Amino acid sequence: MRQAGRYLEEYRAVRAAHDFLSLLSTPDLACEVTRQPIRRFGFDAAIIFSDILVPLVPMGMDLRFEEAVGPVIGNPLRSASDVDRLRGVDPVSDLGFVLDAIQQFVRAEPDVPLIGFAGAPFTLASYMIEGGSTREFIATKRFLYQEPRLARKLLQKLAWTVSQHLIAQIEAGAAAVQIFDSWAGQLSKEDYLRYALPYTVEIVELVRKTGVPVIVFAKGVHSCLSELSTSGADVLSVDWTIPLDSVAGTTEGRVAIQGNLDPAVLLARPETIERETQRVLSEARSLRGGHIFNLGHGIHRSTNPDHVQFLVDCVRRLGRQRAPAHPTDAAL
Amino acid sequence: MRQAGRYLEEYRAVRAAHDFLSLLSTPDLACEVTRQPIRRFGFDAAIIFSDILVPLVPMGMDLRFEEAVGPVIGNPLRSASDVDRLRGVDPVSDLGFVLDAIQQFVRAEPDVPLIGFAGAPFTLASYMIEGGSTREFIATKRFLYQEPRLARKLLQKLAWTVSQHLIAQIEAGAAAVQIFDSWAGQLSKEDYLRYALPYTVEIVELVRKTGVPVIVFAKGVHSCLSELSTSGADVLSVDWTIPLDSVAGTTEGRVAIQGNLDPAVLLARPETIERETQRVLSEARSLRGGHIFNLGHGIHRSTNPDHVQFLVDCVRRLGRQRAPAHPTDAAL
Repeated sequence: MRQAGRYLEEYRAVRAAHDFLSLLSTPDLACEVTRQPIRRFGFDAAIIFSDILVPLVPMGMDLRFEEAVGPVIGNPLRSASDVDRLRGVDPVSDLGFVLDAIQQFVRAEPDVPLIGFAGAPFTLASYMIEGGSTREFIATKRFLYQEPRLARKLLQKLAWTVSQHLIAQIEAGAAAVQIFDSWAGQLSKEDYLRYALPYTVEIVELVRKTGVPVIVFAKGVHSCLSELSTSGADVLSVDWTIPLDSVAGTTEGRVAIQGNLDPAVLLARPETIERETQRVLSEARSLRGGHIFNLGHGIHRSTNPDHVQFLVDCVRRLGRQRAPAHPTDAAL
Repeated sequence: MRQAGRYLEEYRAVRAAHDFLSLLSTPDLACEVTRQPIRRFGFDAAIIFSDILVPLVPMGMDLRFEEAVGPVIGNPLRSASDVDRLRGVDPVSDLGFVLDAIQQFVRAEPDVPLIGFAGAPFTLASYMIEGGSTREFIATKRFLYQEPRLARKLLQKLAWTVSQHLIAQIEAGAAAVQIFDSWAGQLSKEDYLRYALPYTVEIVELVRKTGVPVIVFAKGVHSCLSELSTSGADVLSVDWTIPLDSVAGTTEGRVAIQGNLDPAVLLARPETIERETQRVLSEARSLRGGHIFNLGHGIHRSTNPDHVQFLVDCVRRLGRQRAPAHPTDAAL
């Protein structure tokens, strides 16, 4: 989950002088911002500061980030010719700034494993079709239902682009990669199995040939945890609405599980943070494939950084009290 | 689920002359708009045209509906004194317009069972705290975590208000009532069991004394279907992300199930609508407590009314082809 961001004053200081897209595309800045939460909290791993939408720019999408709105795409996909016009992406020449930031980080922090990432095809397609964020996914679903063949063509292009981008991140030094399917939970099980999972599986298969672990985060996908656990991914990352003890039964130890504290818990008083951390660690005991402690989503901008430090201390302290049965336990 | 709305030209004609809040609070208009989809499609039951937020106005909330934004509350809850200041609601004198609309409908359409409804306390509280719609529920969760006692006091007030409102709707002629917990799926299982389910159960217990069936719709609540099925409700309404065959195993025939076609399927071509309807009916065969065919959420404004008619025809035609094992099968 995103570690850096507006909840940190050192991030706000960098951001004051640069817009979001400049920050992402300037390796010195992206590396610096990636290092900020590592310096401050000493997390066991870092995630590169980037955005799932960056590959859409070289594909030909007119992307900007508006304050208080989020991503806006000026030329959303409307027709077959829009899909045909999408350009192939060369991860080195088109997205070299991500790779440079990864290389810089790995040189600067050789002892901190770095996670690269990308968006899953369905989630990326939803932004390309809606032209930005949405709550109802009406344009996306209309596109899937009315133009299933065109939708598959788009998802296929995205699967290829994403897998090449992830492999390049691994070659640049990423120690693991995570695929974010942030909106897959909006689909029925059948549509998830039709329009989301196959493309994620294709990416996992291509990327795993590198030998580097692959984490899949399919937010809100309750009904396909079993299918996800046989997708070839090493780790399944789950949000806070999916109880870990029910995940244990469904995934049967085939994958490690990452998660799943509600990031809003960091807005609570310390005693509540400790209680909820203890609950997650306790539920995680039923996971036979191992557990990586993490939030169920990114840190909210109104979070007090002292609470993040308190959480890290809780995980380290309470995690040590447990039976040493889960070697992959790690903090955030 | 809401049947009336902008997808119907006869609704748009009424709406052109009245703002949304006036429409809700004028019984002649609310009754007329409730009858429109019944006249057009001949659904087996109607749902009164109203809004879950109407009880907040006599409680003291400054509610308005803005075009393209939705509900906006000018005085969101911030403190204990804000909660203390909330007024008790007399459903007859404060919300008599809902009851009048129900009485008018029952007189005009004596053969069409009418469903009354209200919002569940957690969902109503989220609007009161956020001041409108939200995607992240950060203010709501901060309130729950930082002020749990105050949150319980608010939820308790809402449970009482909602139960009195539902009982009054039944006395006015509603043949069943539905409780909408539209945002409960945003909570972890523990928080759902703490801050949402107990208040819904309290309402169900009070309302069921009338002898009228109670339907509970807890959108996106995957992890508590078993708890919901023992809540005392007669019917559990599920959205399209919850597969009916998995519901069958969890609820074990204790309740009837309502749902769960994705309303976005109505944007598809007829053959896709038919395929998905067949799928829902086929999955529903595993439900031992009976099944009420319905959408998993309200109809989207961009829906072609001819597709709704086609869906009704599909359900009636395909439903008849099935073994007569489910006496509660009904169309929408």
